Amino acid sequence: MIEKKDYRDAVSRISAAICVVTTNGIGGLAGFTASAVCSLTDSPGMLLVCLQIKSSAYQAVKTNQVVCINTLGADSAQLVKRFSEKGSMVERFKEVVWFESSTGSPVLANAMVSFDCDVIETKCVETHEILLCRVRNIIYGNTDQHALVYYNRQVHRLS
Amino acid sequence: MIEKKDYRDAVSRISAAICVVTTNGIGGLAGFTASAVCSLTDSPGMLLVCLQIKSSAYQAVKTNQVVCINTLGADSAQLVKRFSEKGSMVERFKEVVWFESSTGSPVLANAMVSFDCDVIETKCVETHEILLCRVRNIIYGNTDQHALVYYNRQVHRLS
Repeated sequence: MIEKKDYRDAVSRISAAICVVTTNGIGGLAGFTASAVCSLTDSPGMLLVCLQIKSSAYQAVKTNQVVCINTLGADSAQLVKRFSEKGSMVERFKEVVWFESSTGSPVLANAMVSFDCDVIETKCVETHEILLCRVRNIIYGNTDQHALVYYNRQVHRLS
Repeated sequence: MIEKKDYRDAVSRISAAICVVTTNGIGGLAGFTASAVCSLTDSPGMLLVCLQIKSSAYQAVKTNQVVCINTLGADSAQLVKRFSEKGSMVERFKEVVWFESSTGSPVLANAMVSFDCDVIETKCVETHEILLCRVRNIIYGNTDQHALVYYNRQVHRLS
């Protein structure tokens, strides 16, 4: 079996977009930084997100069954850390402009692009759950900024 | 419902690593370019790959139940197109050095890093199948090269 450290070192070489995934509803407001997001099908438009079951956002996502996947650009670099630390959910959303999507999930005004989704199914795999997210609306923020990419344990900017 | 074109335009803003996923065994030799690859769990080490059911590599992957996920660097830029076009599987593997992994899948000698995996489960979602891949071995190629990232319908290099 591969050691956890060896696995983590190796996957750090798979670059990934950085997203802040948000939710709101009867399960409460929550959001988390995600780099395990990818496109699944284009008809219908579906994305998947991997979420740790121990994540502080897990219960809210499971209850609300809606998420907004906000793709970050350089304008929002400060959110990467804020949404992956232990701060309260209310703290995470402060000082930045958000608006409410049709699902109720917060849309980051300055995102590159945001995907407002219904979580139509989940699949549990060991410590994580795969969220199968069907896109209800696409909202563009600012596509002129640099994209943020996580690679080799650092945040890079891509033009 | 979101139009296919609108969805594709929007997801082009989610950057992704470029991998060539290979397989070999009684189902035959096959390989395809994949940008929908992400880390799932670190204990055990697992990655997921989204594969179109219509893909010419689909039957081989399903039969062999093993894949090698080769993360591409700039040394292998010519493979991105070759493994996503209609050429025969034998043609795709020509002129580049590969060696056989413990699962039998081809390992790209010049990859950034390769993950030799057993496909332990699959989940069908509309036009695609999610391959749940448990890592059996990690093989480093050349980590000094620039990483290849797909973003806004172009291949970028990241140092």
